[in-house]
Amino acid sequence: MAERSVPFRDKAIETAPRPEIEKIQTAALRTQIAQALKTPFYRPRLEEAGLSSPDEIRSLADLSRIPFTSKGDLREAYPFGLLAVPKDQVVRVHASSGTTGTPTVIYLTQKDLDLASDTMARCLTAAGATSGDVVQNMMTYGLFTGGLCFHYGAELLGAMVIPTSAGNTLRQLKFMKDFGTTMVHATPSYLLHLHQAIADEGYSRGDLRLRMAVTGAEPHSEELRLKIQDKLGIEVYNCYGMSEMNGPGVAFECVHRAGMHVWEDRYIAEILDPDTLLPVPEGEIGELVLTILCRDAMPLLRYRTRDLTRFIPEPCACGRTHRRIARFTGRTDDMLIINGVNVFPSQIEEVLLRTKGVGANYFIIVDKDGVLDKLTVQVEITPEMFADDSRVINALRERLKSELQALITINPVLEIKQPGSLPVSEGKAKRVSDLRPKE
Amino acid sequence: MAERSVPFRDKAIETAPRPEIEKIQTAALRTQIAQALKTPFYRPRLEEAGLSSPDEIRSLADLSRIPFTSKGDLREAYPFGLLAVPKDQVVRVHASSGTTGTPTVIYLTQKDLDLASDTMARCLTAAGATSGDVVQNMMTYGLFTGGLCFHYGAELLGAMVIPTSAGNTLRQLKFMKDFGTTMVHATPSYLLHLHQAIADEGYSRGDLRLRMAVTGAEPHSEELRLKIQDKLGIEVYNCYGMSEMNGPGVAFECVHRAGMHVWEDRYIAEILDPDTLLPVPEGEIGELVLTILCRDAMPLLRYRTRDLTRFIPEPCACGRTHRRIARFTGRTDDMLIINGVNVFPSQIEEVLLRTKGVGANYFIIVDKDGVLDKLTVQVEITPEMFADDSRVINALRERLKSELQALITINPVLEIKQPGSLPVSEGKAKRVSDLRPKE
Repeated sequence: MAERSVPFRDKAIETAPRPEIEKIQTAALRTQIAQALKTPFYRPRLEEAGLSSPDEIRSLADLSRIPFTSKGDLREAYPFGLLAVPKDQVVRVHASSGTTGTPTVIYLTQKDLDLASDTMARCLTAAGATSGDVVQNMMTYGLFTGGLCFHYGAELLGAMVIPTSAGNTLRQLKFMKDFGTTMVHATPSYLLHLHQAIADEGYSRGDLRLRMAVTGAEPHSEELRLKIQDKLGIEVYNCYGMSEMNGPGVAFECVHRAGMHVWEDRYIAEILDPDTLLPVPEGEIGELVLTILCRDAMPLLRYRTRDLTRFIPEPCACGRTHRRIARFTGRTDDMLIINGVNVFPSQIEEVLLRTKGVGANYFIIVDKDGVLDKLTVQVEITPEMFADDSRVINALRERLKSELQALITINPVLEIKQPGSLPVSEGKAKRVSDLRPKE
Repeated sequence: MAERSVPFRDKAIETAPRPEIEKIQTAALRTQIAQALKTPFYRPRLEEAGLSSPDEIRSLADLSRIPFTSKGDLREAYPFGLLAVPKDQVVRVHASSGTTGTPTVIYLTQKDLDLASDTMARCLTAAGATSGDVVQNMMTYGLFTGGLCFHYGAELLGAMVIPTSAGNTLRQLKFMKDFGTTMVHATPSYLLHLHQAIADEGYSRGDLRLRMAVTGAEPHSEELRLKIQDKLGIEVYNCYGMSEMNGPGVAFECVHRAGMHVWEDRYIAEILDPDTLLPVPEGEIGELVLTILCRDAMPLLRYRTRDLTRFIPEPCACGRTHRRIARFTGRTDDMLIINGVNVFPSQIEEVLLRTKGVGANYFIIVDKDGVLDKLTVQVEITPEMFADDSRVINALRERLKSELQALITINPVLEIKQPGSLPVSEGKAKRVSDLRPKE
């Protein structure tokens, strides 16, 4: 990439030497332990681990003494078991959808909210956004952090924020054109849908001033990013977060787009072997475990995200010292075991999307065929490919089959679908259906 | 009502003597004229009216020299004709739905947004809300001001805000119970729906800590308010606003709930004869015309709201000097002319809701019957009434018919409907269908 100036929101912090970062983390961890000791959920657990005072934390090495927290724990602590401040100091509640089962909930004080907004503004600055940008936020507003928490960061940056929320693609396009939107926040699958709608509705690229997108809420491959960048002619930035950690902005790409910097003054990131729960060697894949350092209302210590990634050990060209994590390989709990082989949907996506002629959408079905597992991959092809000779389409099918078999050692059924025939979701795309009977 | 202390957010301003309010208004009006002169929409119009400088405004009497602005003007000025600041100073865009035709759009700078939030926080304080309240906001978040602008005010107040947004009634109830929600923001029709759901889902009133509701976005009668208060055992506060004026909070009820105080340091309210556009005598009904005084990014001068109301001339017991407006009689453009008689749907609602046995929902249909207009009123009855003898139901029908005829001099068709049979909307209730051919 061409020489490009690196923007910072808080350069001293973002480029702090490692010892200074660790000093900040140690002090903040002590504060978090103090807060945790005020909660009915953590107090007995910490005491049992010999951590009945924040002074027990002398260095980051003491992190390993802290027990883990899981999503199940959050549900167990619902609604107020993790609240560390009096209720009248809480100004915001966010929650997972909660349509089935117990929702997972977070609380924020005004200070927590200000820090969350500042973190998000730092992310956007790192990606090159400024107060001159027109930001259209296509994530759902409400209890979902992806809408409001991103919104607050963009507003703090001073951008012109258009809170369109999710859906209503025709209005999204009209507003993008009429207000000169320069940045959108959306899922990767919605960006592809938007690209298709731009063509279908007769907009030309010159109608739009779009220059960048922030994508989140949905794991996707580098191939998909490149495809979106290419189709829309924009830069696409990866964003990592989850509602438990204040939503988007835990980790974010800088202008070099080569992995996401975890904001280590606000989160402690560990990458652990999901079985032994010990650190993996630097650079190897493991489960990301996060401790939030910037929330008084609700501590979360060593939270098991179930997301699989690795640290990128090399320093980043941007000069930031906050370590980068790589694109996610999958989740410990979305790994498919097919005839005894570990398969991540992201591996399949990688093969599909690097292949010319493959369209925007695909679907994976796992089923039983007698005693064996059967993997079916449904793939939309592009309109150009669809218009082509059936021999060309058959050749594509065979090529995909053999490439997938080489990668995952399973011979899949490959179904070619016409463009637009697979369902498009406007939120998180659901791309896997496991129809095997539960044991 | 019992003696009750009157809470203020800014007592000096809220109880300022009339001459002081007028001084504030005059100075602010000058600033608004200065802003308006920076816009392509207003500049030629103001110059034509001899107002080429803010100094032309010497007193409030000069208000009458300012031309009116209509909703059509907003559409004409779309997207940027009313923008009075450089684009990079805008931090927020709100818009009407824009699904059909040109949306109406507003812009806010950070200062404008802070003032809008402060106005909303002032409203909530006047109604007795505090930082100790748990506020569940059931209005749609996104471009609609009713969600986000209310949210910002409640957050500024320091309340615990749960941004549930609209819909998903079962989740709303679960959160109300689990978080001890004390205040909700919803449309009156959704509050009735909620009351029904509380019963249907087996919640008891003791499960809920709800003590008040703020209603907006939908005109309704005093009878409906009393019914909701009675059913839910809460206080219901009327709120007036519109997206063009920064959303909810233009006028709000104090703890006396006897008309809505217009915040006259931030809005100039006039009540005019919709035909002559001259002021009606104090206390008489006319069209509310508003000038916003607290928005640098987008002035709106003498905006014709089409809403019909009157000033309440008597001073309010709360001590606020900002004048009250009465519950709205209707809109200049939702008045129905039936066989030559002016009928407002609100008049029909008034009769229905004061009648025992009438349920939560009704629908008005106007159609042609030969050369004459025909008015049909569909009315749900309560489950108790529905279980009663058919003679009782017939008596109710006849009573409603004769009361309606007495009020509106038209003999309506009265259709009794079983409870829950008419459609319930979760947003603004649509209660009128005019099926007559357009001329």
